Amino acid sequence: MTKTKGIFPILLRLLALGATVAAIVVMVTSHQSAEVLNLTFTAKYNNEPVFVFFVIAEAIAGGYSLLVLVLSAKSFLWRLIIISDVIVTVLLTSTISAALAIARVGKQGNSHAGWLPICGQVPKFCDHVTGALVSGFAAAIIYLLLLLYSLHAVLSPVFSVNP
Amino acid sequence: MTKTKGIFPILLRLLALGATVAAIVVMVTSHQSAEVLNLTFTAKYNNEPVFVFFVIAEAIAGGYSLLVLVLSAKSFLWRLIIISDVIVTVLLTSTISAALAIARVGKQGNSHAGWLPICGQVPKFCDHVTGALVSGFAAAIIYLLLLLYSLHAVLSPVFSVNP
Repeated sequence: MTKTKGIFPILLRLLALGATVAAIVVMVTSHQSAEVLNLTFTAKYNNEPVFVFFVIAEAIAGGYSLLVLVLSAKSFLWRLIIISDVIVTVLLTSTISAALAIARVGKQGNSHAGWLPICGQVPKFCDHVTGALVSGFAAAIIYLLLLLYSLHAVLSPVFSVNP
Repeated sequence: MTKTKGIFPILLRLLALGATVAAIVVMVTSHQSAEVLNLTFTAKYNNEPVFVFFVIAEAIAGGYSLLVLVLSAKSFLWRLIIISDVIVTVLLTSTISAALAIARVGKQGNSHAGWLPICGQVPKFCDHVTGALVSGFAAAIIYLLLLLYSLHAVLSPVFSVNP
């Protein structure tokens, strides 16, 4: 199990921590007011539940990354690391996918459903959301890599013992 | 590795196969025409790219489940089963989350963005999509359970050898 605490996983967890913090900061600071047909409206990330879930998931993944970085490899919790990595990877994948789906409607709309794109009215808000989603996407990819690396490290002895 | 080919994983893969096939059939057959303001429009799953991705992902996961069910445990490919289970779980989670996010807008709309719900106009279409998403959600949960079970089975000897 020591392989899962090598320099490569530590580097990946640091990167994931950075990506999740960046995603949270950029998403939470995204708001822009615009005037359409004499009505002022404000675009905020918390107008869309999916973006709120996204921020919560990034916070959980960021906190988890920090916890694992400071956790001793001798700790009992260390045994659960691959299982918890699976949970965090699934959580990050789920929320980034949902947020990307909504962001696509915001950018391109869906003419069949009569949903108009909003990025023309609130371009700065859309830029912020795009930045947050890029960071969130990076965090999900990093966790997937981390998981595949840990699995490879842990499964190699199993393969050689029981081919 | 033999534990990953027990009766419980086989049952889960059969269930996952059934769930993905059900999701595909129910989603692909979902279409309804409605008249709004003298304009006839047809709601179809392939009007929304996210639903198309959903169907593709369910087809990949269904085909993969079938392949694993007929694959010999002595095959070289069997060694890669946990890695490929991770990929399939992430794929299913990603597409169901994106589809759920869009379906939520279809059902409840987003007043801040001016996106109106469409389920009032095309209730049968919405019922079909809901059914497909329930099946897709079940498939994702089954794969997550399968993955956690396989990890537990594979990691147990690792834990006892190297505590």
